[in-house]
Amino acid sequence: MSHGHPRISLPVQVMYFDTDAGGVVHNLAYLRFIETARTLLAVDLGMSFEEIQRTGIHPVVVRTEIDYRKPGRLGEHLLVNGGIGEIARARFWVEFEVVRRDGGEILVSCRQSLAVVRMPEGRPMRVAEVFPILAPTAA
Amino acid sequence: MSHGHPRISLPVQVMYFDTDAGGVVHNLAYLRFIETARTLLAVDLGMSFEEIQRTGIHPVVVRTEIDYRKPGRLGEHLLVNGGIGEIARARFWVEFEVVRRDGGEILVSCRQSLAVVRMPEGRPMRVAEVFPILAPTAA
Amino acid sequence: MSHGHPRISLPVQVMYFDTDAGGVVHNLAYLRFIETARTLLAVDLGMSFEEIQRTGIHPVVVRTEIDYRKPGRLGEHLLVNGGIGEIARARFWVEFEVVRRDGGEILVSCRQSLAVVRMPEGRPMRVAEVFPILAPTAA
Amino acid sequence: MSHGHPRISLPVQVMYFDTDAGGVVHNLAYLRFIETARTLLAVDLGMSFEEIQRTGIHPVVVRTEIDYRKPGRLGEHLLVNGGIGEIARARFWVEFEVVRRDGGEILVSCRQSLAVVRMPEGRPMRVAEVFPILAPTAA
Repeated sequence: MSHGHPRISLPVQVMYFDTDAGGVVHNLAYLRFIETARTLLAVDLGMSFEEIQRTGIHPVVVRTEIDYRKPGRLGEHLLVNGGIGEIARARFWVEFEVVRRDGGEILVSCRQSLAVVRMPEGRPMRVAEVFPILAPTAA
Repeated sequence: MSHGHPRISLPVQVMYFDTDAGGVVHNLAYLRFIETARTLLAVDLGMSFEEIQRTGIHPVVVRTEIDYRKPGRLGEHLLVNGGIGEIARARFWVEFEVVRRDGGEILVSCRQSLAVVRMPEGRPMRVAEVFPILAPTAA
Repeated sequence: MSHGHPRISLPVQVMYFDTDAGGVVHNLAYLRFIETARTLLAVDLGMSFEEIQRTGIHPVVVRTEIDYRKPGRLGEHLLVNGGIGEIARARFWVEFEVVRRDGGEILVSCRQSLAVVRMPEGRPMRVAEVFPILAPTAA
Repeated sequence: MSHGHPRISLPVQVMYFDTDAGGVVHNLAYLRFIETARTLLAVDLGMSFEEIQRTGIHPVVVRTEIDYRKPGRLGEHLLVNGGIGEIARARFWVEFEVVRRDGGEILVSCRQSLAVVRMPEGRPMRVAEVFPILAPTAA
């Protein structure tokens, strides 16, 4: 999960709209937190919103795996920590953990596989072509 | 609120993601329910998604007023009832109530003012030009 | 995915709030559709909202795996089809596909593992104890 | 809108999930931004999440008025600026503007009326009793 690639640590505080009547953070809210972290990570990799709009090339989530381990609570301060995982020719993985800011207990762990496509045709690109910084780690 | 115009009554059941840790339906969820009802009402007025994409002309919410009267609960069956309100040259109002299906108690009442614009320029259109069915009720 | 257990097929039409500026259905929206279908499936299994509130026993998603295959579009009519998958002592899987209503093309496939817990202690229950209809299919 | 009361200025960057297929920020997203700002403002007024849970007293939105003036775009940096408005015996108003960070153009203006209630009975409280800092400005 390292390779010297950029990593992100995004602070989040749990708001009412992140929770549900069960009294805990709703499943979907974590994926919203993770999307924000992933987008900021992409910016660090050189894929800003402007760059995406200029080139039409953008990363697309093709698979998400997420494990819910402990419930988060209203008002809690969390961190979304993550970075680049395995890199293949046409796909790469990002890996995230949502942890309590105080104590670091892991609430959620998540990995997502992304393809890079040129829109509007949806043509798949090679990862290394788009992100020279991301040389494949796996065939 | 009548004029013989189309009206809508959309059934909704409150899901977990509609609620928050206060144990009741979250403010934003009602506006999502109302948006669905408003979109289906627009279809009844002849403004389908296909028509919007073909013409580039679509209704845009310019103002929302919403009163929260009673809390909705997880699992409750609600109805979003609404229709066209006042019609002016370049704006028209839609009016909605979210009520309990059983008993009809009003949880929320809402009115929204819409303009009709041609995108991407954002050029405002006259309401009657776009919806011949909606002749102005006010100068 | 059968076992003679209840299955669900939930119709959904894609609204503006389900899409993003990429012009397609947003990743999170599919999981909202699936949550609605899963909740209605749980009701069919005897776990209504009232029953959950009476007993404090409710199903909790502990893992989601979701594959995004094709993009959904604004206004499209979709179906969320799903049912019960593998059943273990303390966990069971639900499996869903989001397909186009017309033509049946698969946009998304998803499986989720659920535990059944008694709140507020969070005590895990045996699946068969809670859902007599769900006898384990795997040790 | 002043009275020497606390004010808030919350930076927000527009994410994909804040936008819709119209290519602009979705109506509901602004209200999510504003809810975050309002919650942090309440903390500044002494109403932290812990305090709310300890006392059961919390502010409840009873009315929202929101005007959508200009569209926000994907990736834009916004500020949610706001503070306390008119204060009555049993209600008070909060007032917000969502502006572009660069240039300050106003995208949205919003005012919300809040009541303060003690849950679970829902008993209304006097504003000044709950927030000594907020003496009524209107009968």
